[in-house]
Amino acid sequence: MSRSRPQALYVLAHPEQHSLNRELFAAARAELERTHDVAVSDLYAMGFDPVLTTCDLGASGREPGTFLERWGRATASRGLASDILDEQRKLREADVVVIQFPLWWYSVPAILKGWFDRVLTAGFGFDVVDPATGRTRKYGDGLLTGTRALIVVSFGESASAMGPRGIAGDLDSILFGLIHGTLFYTGVEVLPVHAIADADGFDSSDIARETARLRARISGLAEETPIPFRSMRGGDYTRSRTLDPAIAPGRSDLAIHRRGD
Amino acid sequence: MSRSRPQALYVLAHPEQHSLNRELFAAARAELERTHDVAVSDLYAMGFDPVLTTCDLGASGREPGTFLERWGRATASRGLASDILDEQRKLREADVVVIQFPLWWYSVPAILKGWFDRVLTAGFGFDVVDPATGRTRKYGDGLLTGTRALIVVSFGESASAMGPRGIAGDLDSILFGLIHGTLFYTGVEVLPVHAIADADGFDSSDIARETARLRARISGLAEETPIPFRSMRGGDYTRSRTLDPAIAPGRSDLAIHRRGD
Repeated sequence: MSRSRPQALYVLAHPEQHSLNRELFAAARAELERTHDVAVSDLYAMGFDPVLTTCDLGASGREPGTFLERWGRATASRGLASDILDEQRKLREADVVVIQFPLWWYSVPAILKGWFDRVLTAGFGFDVVDPATGRTRKYGDGLLTGTRALIVVSFGESASAMGPRGIAGDLDSILFGLIHGTLFYTGVEVLPVHAIADADGFDSSDIARETARLRARISGLAEETPIPFRSMRGGDYTRSRTLDPAIAPGRSDLAIHRRGD
Repeated sequence: MSRSRPQALYVLAHPEQHSLNRELFAAARAELERTHDVAVSDLYAMGFDPVLTTCDLGASGREPGTFLERWGRATASRGLASDILDEQRKLREADVVVIQFPLWWYSVPAILKGWFDRVLTAGFGFDVVDPATGRTRKYGDGLLTGTRALIVVSFGESASAMGPRGIAGDLDSILFGLIHGTLFYTGVEVLPVHAIADADGFDSSDIARETARLRARISGLAEETPIPFRSMRGGDYTRSRTLDPAIAPGRSDLAIHRRGD
């Protein structure tokens, strides 16, 4: 297979075969395929099992050691389940990852949460010790450095309810554990979230507008600037891993972890 | 069965049969049983299926209408799967709910996310229209008003990394979608989170200390004051569902949604 074109992975988590999310997915995938070889993880269509169990920690599930030790050994020895190895290969090869889902309870659907739980194993997504330096790589320095990600999320709330001072909490804060704690943690460069508000009552003109907006976003991915999160190794954090008191003094909102805020 | 004692539901999401979380669970459950009849949802032991599918929307999965309309009809007609009806009954009967889990990727494990996804159905957890007034009940006014909840969460990070200005984001912000967007949304009164930091390297004295601390917390639940989130109907939000500009002016951290902040 030629590797002359950049690689993309499109992760979709939606249970319906006919829905706004399916239409957006089809359009965005077609747009992405103009410039990338696109692998797809359609989690519902795959019947992806999202439940991390002790069976993920090694063949018998009864090896000695802590949870993390067993998981790390299973990862190092390629003792993971074949569905996990497949997803890790797709992730490792991807230059761009698009992750699309409906917002359920102000978070990702369980099937997508479990994709992170199971695929980002100890020694793959985190607890990655650099053999050259002996240090653990995380927060802007994980194994997936060089990958960029676009989150595409639809929700029924209005943009204002999910915006700054909105009753639901602003979307960037609500998704901080995904954007920063998961993707940035493992080294991924995360682009500003593509939010689709008021999505419960869409008619065909709404869908046409949102399809065009997402296609435009996809076509310009290479020119976008990722969210400038502060790196753990950049000197902005103290030894106790809190932000330097001289930076954004007095503030405790999550935007303080972005440079320039 | 006597209903003279208050009812509790203990939801546990941990894959290991022998672990810190299991020891804490056993101790906390025993403490809770001194004063409550305790139902348990041990999600891993139950093999709980966390994946919300179109089969949850009605017997055939192919009824007409939008996702929410079909889900609401299935709820109203008792057409939900038996595992969901069981969990809804436990929740409805509970005066207190304890929800215990390890923090995975700064969120709940997938099996627990899916418990919320599937159990809090349209017309049960949300989209509950009050027949007397015709208004939709949510944000401090959901169906589960009168229930109080304690979240018990363990994580490997230090307390400072998960505290105000910590690199991971503070725990109350990271869990805002659960505490406020899920539990408070459905009317539950949420108590301050019981956090167990540095949990990867616990020895027997750490476990003894944490067990005693959790037992003390459980024994005093009735005297605790819930987090004073602002109610959607309390006049603090504008019609566009953003916080009144006169309240906490200039701030955009999630703590502005608590009274007194």
